[in-house]
Amino acid sequence: MLGATGLIILLSLFGIGVAFFYMKRVTDIPVDLGLAKEESDRLKFIHGAIAEGAMAFLKQEYKTLSYFMIGFAVVIALLTDNHETEGANEGLWTAVSFLFGAAISVLSGYVGMKVATAGNARTTVSARNSLADAFVVAINSGAVMGFALVGLATLGLILIYLFMNMVLTDVPNNVLMEVIAGFGLGGSTIALFARVGGGIFTKAADVGADLVGKVEKGIPEDDPRNPAVIADNVGDNVGDVAGMGADLFGSCAESTCAALVISALAFAADLNAMLYPIMITAVGIPVSLVTKLMVTVKTEEQVGPALKRLLMISSLIMAVLMYFVTVAMIPESFVIDEVMYSATGVYFCFLSGLVAGLAVGLLTEYYTSGDYKPVQEIAKSCETGAATNIIFGLALGYKSTVLPYLAIAVSIFVSWELAGMYGIAIASLGMLGTLVIALMIDAYGPVADNAGGIAEMVGLDKEVRRRTDVLDAAGNTTAAIGKGFAIGAAILTSLALFSAFITHSQNLMRARPEYGANYDLVSAITLLDPTVYTSLFIGAVLPFLFSAMTMKSVGAAAFDMIEEVRRQFREIPGIMEGQGRPQYGQCVAISTQAALREMIAPGVLIIGTPLVVGFLFGVQAVAGLLAGSLVAGGVLAIASSNAGGAWDNAKKYIEKGHHGGKGSEAHKAAVIGDTVGDPLKDTSGPSLNILIKLSAILSLVFAPFFVNYGGILVG
Amino acid sequence: MLGATGLIILLSLFGIGVAFFYMKRVTDIPVDLGLAKEESDRLKFIHGAIAEGAMAFLKQEYKTLSYFMIGFAVVIALLTDNHETEGANEGLWTAVSFLFGAAISVLSGYVGMKVATAGNARTTVSARNSLADAFVVAINSGAVMGFALVGLATLGLILIYLFMNMVLTDVPNNVLMEVIAGFGLGGSTIALFARVGGGIFTKAADVGADLVGKVEKGIPEDDPRNPAVIADNVGDNVGDVAGMGADLFGSCAESTCAALVISALAFAADLNAMLYPIMITAVGIPVSLVTKLMVTVKTEEQVGPALKRLLMISSLIMAVLMYFVTVAMIPESFVIDEVMYSATGVYFCFLSGLVAGLAVGLLTEYYTSGDYKPVQEIAKSCETGAATNIIFGLALGYKSTVLPYLAIAVSIFVSWELAGMYGIAIASLGMLGTLVIALMIDAYGPVADNAGGIAEMVGLDKEVRRRTDVLDAAGNTTAAIGKGFAIGAAILTSLALFSAFITHSQNLMRARPEYGANYDLVSAITLLDPTVYTSLFIGAVLPFLFSAMTMKSVGAAAFDMIEEVRRQFREIPGIMEGQGRPQYGQCVAISTQAALREMIAPGVLIIGTPLVVGFLFGVQAVAGLLAGSLVAGGVLAIASSNAGGAWDNAKKYIEKGHHGGKGSEAHKAAVIGDTVGDPLKDTSGPSLNILIKLSAILSLVFAPFFVNYGGILVG
Repeated sequence: MLGATGLIILLSLFGIGVAFFYMKRVTDIPVDLGLAKEESDRLKFIHGAIAEGAMAFLKQEYKTLSYFMIGFAVVIALLTDNHETEGANEGLWTAVSFLFGAAISVLSGYVGMKVATAGNARTTVSARNSLADAFVVAINSGAVMGFALVGLATLGLILIYLFMNMVLTDVPNNVLMEVIAGFGLGGSTIALFARVGGGIFTKAADVGADLVGKVEKGIPEDDPRNPAVIADNVGDNVGDVAGMGADLFGSCAESTCAALVISALAFAADLNAMLYPIMITAVGIPVSLVTKLMVTVKTEEQVGPALKRLLMISSLIMAVLMYFVTVAMIPESFVIDEVMYSATGVYFCFLSGLVAGLAVGLLTEYYTSGDYKPVQEIAKSCETGAATNIIFGLALGYKSTVLPYLAIAVSIFVSWELAGMYGIAIASLGMLGTLVIALMIDAYGPVADNAGGIAEMVGLDKEVRRRTDVLDAAGNTTAAIGKGFAIGAAILTSLALFSAFITHSQNLMRARPEYGANYDLVSAITLLDPTVYTSLFIGAVLPFLFSAMTMKSVGAAAFDMIEEVRRQFREIPGIMEGQGRPQYGQCVAISTQAALREMIAPGVLIIGTPLVVGFLFGVQAVAGLLAGSLVAGGVLAIASSNAGGAWDNAKKYIEKGHHGGKGSEAHKAAVIGDTVGDPLKDTSGPSLNILIKLSAILSLVFAPFFVNYGGILVG
Repeated sequence: MLGATGLIILLSLFGIGVAFFYMKRVTDIPVDLGLAKEESDRLKFIHGAIAEGAMAFLKQEYKTLSYFMIGFAVVIALLTDNHETEGANEGLWTAVSFLFGAAISVLSGYVGMKVATAGNARTTVSARNSLADAFVVAINSGAVMGFALVGLATLGLILIYLFMNMVLTDVPNNVLMEVIAGFGLGGSTIALFARVGGGIFTKAADVGADLVGKVEKGIPEDDPRNPAVIADNVGDNVGDVAGMGADLFGSCAESTCAALVISALAFAADLNAMLYPIMITAVGIPVSLVTKLMVTVKTEEQVGPALKRLLMISSLIMAVLMYFVTVAMIPESFVIDEVMYSATGVYFCFLSGLVAGLAVGLLTEYYTSGDYKPVQEIAKSCETGAATNIIFGLALGYKSTVLPYLAIAVSIFVSWELAGMYGIAIASLGMLGTLVIALMIDAYGPVADNAGGIAEMVGLDKEVRRRTDVLDAAGNTTAAIGKGFAIGAAILTSLALFSAFITHSQNLMRARPEYGANYDLVSAITLLDPTVYTSLFIGAVLPFLFSAMTMKSVGAAAFDMIEEVRRQFREIPGIMEGQGRPQYGQCVAISTQAALREMIAPGVLIIGTPLVVGFLFGVQAVAGLLAGSLVAGGVLAIASSNAGGAWDNAKKYIEKGHHGGKGSEAHKAAVIGDTVGDPLKDTSGPSLNILIKLSAILSLVFAPFFVNYGGILVG
């Protein structure tokens, strides 16, 4: 028999193979398919500039990060060693895990960017043939990202597990799992900078291009005379492909690590059961392929529903299939921390996460799509000006947090009752059950978006642009669903990591004489403890500070970009007549520099705060900090994303001709709302996902440090 | 010897006496002092209209509330009886406390409104004499509110204590204190509706008057041709006098109740020590009088510093005096819950609250005053339009939460270490130590503001308006400090109430067989309990939903007002020429109706949620709910208030001539920011204070209900 290990490896390799297959399908199309010489040259130039810009950014970013990551790895090696098992060097191995996780995340981001920047122009030229052709190219590009990332994630997880099992034969299971958690931390640290840096890059370029090009100079969007236009297109890839990919890779790796840490004690002797968390994600690979093959598009109207159907069908298949997988892998009954749970219970945990994820996604769509009342109300409020638009948008954002939080709360409550902390981790993996599809749709978006931009810049037939716009619009709606998933998964993942952190810390503490074998950390993190309560307050403030920093970073970066674009319009002769060629590369460089410069402070805040708090006030304080930032950060993330999305679509709704249409006073008010929403929905909101997850996995990995050296101020 | 009881009664009566004295000082001035017949008639008419409008609103509001309060009293009587001591009828007596607290709150609000609407016109006419004269009238009006409210509060507290001690001789001390907590709940319930209703009234009138009058018709602010002008002036009183007064009365009553509940077991035999919490507030009365007598104003430049000096000097005297009071009243060492504390420790708790309050107040000033960098940065951001203004303002609001939260966290940590939960309650009373002065300055604001409006409407000399503007501007800055105090006090109060709720619930639970005498509720409210965690999430979402509701309520109410003002401009002949008299009363009536209509839903949300959650999921869930809404609500309250304040002052900063001054593009952008900030800083932000306090005291009072009948879904 094959066994779980073999099956997971096989499925991972299969996923990577599928990714290669789709990659070839995309790149087999000539990038200038059917174009005349002059158009072909123009397209190749633009396509090349976007691809180069994107790669240049990634390279710069990874270079900057590599110093940081190596430094951080040294810190991990030094501080996370528990010295429990002599000569085991867990700290060192955790650092290795960390770097391995980071490397896989970097590789995934690289692949995603590569294919997204290859697929964009090919979608454009295919759109000259037919909408269906263009759709296939765009979705295949997305598929590469989905299958590659998930395949790499599961392969990475199983390899690190097998490897650590081999080298660390003497340490107890829970320490082993903590070492593996380093993998999640590595992925998540890359994700932090990818999200924040990518978010700043894309918004700086966007705002710069819009404000100077559209508003000051009155030239249309994606006009090749605009020096920031390439940077803007690069930004779509940097933000939505690399950023979102790293985010979801992080969630997947982290949830899996959390589940592994918690189950280390329960399934010590049962390898199959132990590997169940990785299997959940691996099973998604063939399911997603089947789903993809089932969904095709012929007419315009089918595009939107097709994307949604991908999500629905894959959820449904997963829901059915996972029942059998769960029953096969998990023992009929098992015990964690003296409580007995069942395989069926575990399945329902998975299901509760899957359903909650869908619910959050659909609610996000409801609150941010122009098809429903909330956005239409905001559009109407634009009639009385920008102020009412902002007030209504903020109110909508706030209000839109209630039902998703209820859905998540129900999932938490149910899974906790059914399988304790392990259940939470499984629920979060359930929410990520359709990860391949989510990534596919997500990467599809910027490909379609870029395709439209390229059509415009090359000056192709209006019909081409219209077709890519149809693809793009459908992608936007589904992207909202994906955002909902991402934040929902982040919340559940963080909660699972939080549980793992407490379990692990308690075990470490019980081994120390000053606490004793019966030390009850769970009771110690009561809401009525001054340390816990105080740090709960500090934790709640963290997301707000982080948001403020990233929002202002976007402002600062956009300011640099505006100056540069203005300079070029001023100094390059004949630029407005299309004679002088704008220095696109300069704008890309400015966005890159700004993103790299501005991502440091928020990054240090997120990584530094738990370490400092734990060092000064100990484990209890870290627990309060995590809980505070989780509950407040989750609400703020949902509110920010949804308000931003709603403003965006209210503007689009007006542009369709409602409330006076384009150019009306209402439209001007809507544009202001959209601009306010941009940093909220594309920078600070999504970055909060990472904040709450990263601080949790960081605490888990540094638990030995907190236990052994921390709490110097509380004795 | 007099004893604590006698001294408190004496000081209370003294406070009320001082209030009467200042009331007479104000009303002794003829309302039309030195005016010619025609001006006198005009002034009397306007002054009368404002006073009438304010009273009409109060009457309507109290009438609506009276039904609700009586119904709620019946619920309290039925549900909060623990049936522990036969024939004691604690539920019934709690209901009596509740109604008594409500009555005192109503009385305080009434007195405040009465003197504020009497003082406004008298400040106007005194300003014709000199700035110093006008200042005296305005600050004396404020003093009436300060002394009357605090005198009534302490008198009410000591009376209810003595009375309940008399009628409930058989119940244990902690139950007695719970009955007294009804007093705080009564005050707080009135405060909820006063804050929400008042906030909606004032903003609806403000927006209606501005949007139609200033923007559409191009007439200046406070122009008598504007039909909403009286409603706007009424609104200042309704929001800042009645709303803020009820809010701070609630904080004071609640902190005292929390301290009494916690100390009930510690000082059972020591009446002096027991009454210490009431004494803190009572001592503030003579201290404030001395301070007030020390501070005078001669020149323009002295007005702002004088107000700030009031706060500083009274804080200083309190800090010194309270050391001796504490040592005299609190035993050198005492035991609560098996931990020993000291009188000196208690004093430092008081001091930490006082200092934290000042810190929060001054930080609020720093973030919202045009004299410092944050607001100036926002003003600069207006140069690039409304969108950047909004983004920077939101970011400032978010960022401005960090230091106040740190200050509060330090105070929490210190007091908890020094005197446990009792220390928190004392710290919150310390923050309210300068309550008389805070109220004085607070009520001074709308009096000065109204005085300017009246000068404008009557058509007095420009110099009069200039002088009242000086008074008003100084009041605005200090009002920001007051707002900081109010939210800081609300957070500490809620935390104290939270502790009291847990202590009380644990006692009640231990008396029940299903829990047993050793039941450890404190350990049960661990962050790793599914019920606690889930409800923490729900709690965190509550302030956001509440904000969304109140923000949209303002929108709806303003919409009604806009329609009405437009209608009058359209239908009343000669209104723009000053011939046709606007129907001021109609606008007041519309604001009143809208406020009463719109305050119901948020009110029900706040009162209903803890009751429902406790009934369904029990005490643990209520604990999580309170903690979640406290930490998230506090941050949101500070962020909302400060963003709003900063936008307001950025606009004023530009109007002083910076960045292009009045009428420039930057100014237009600033006006949009100001309008967005209005509901945030005057309605939803301040109402969040009440949310967090009210849900806490409500839970404390309903603890017997949760323990006896609650938790039906968790078994």
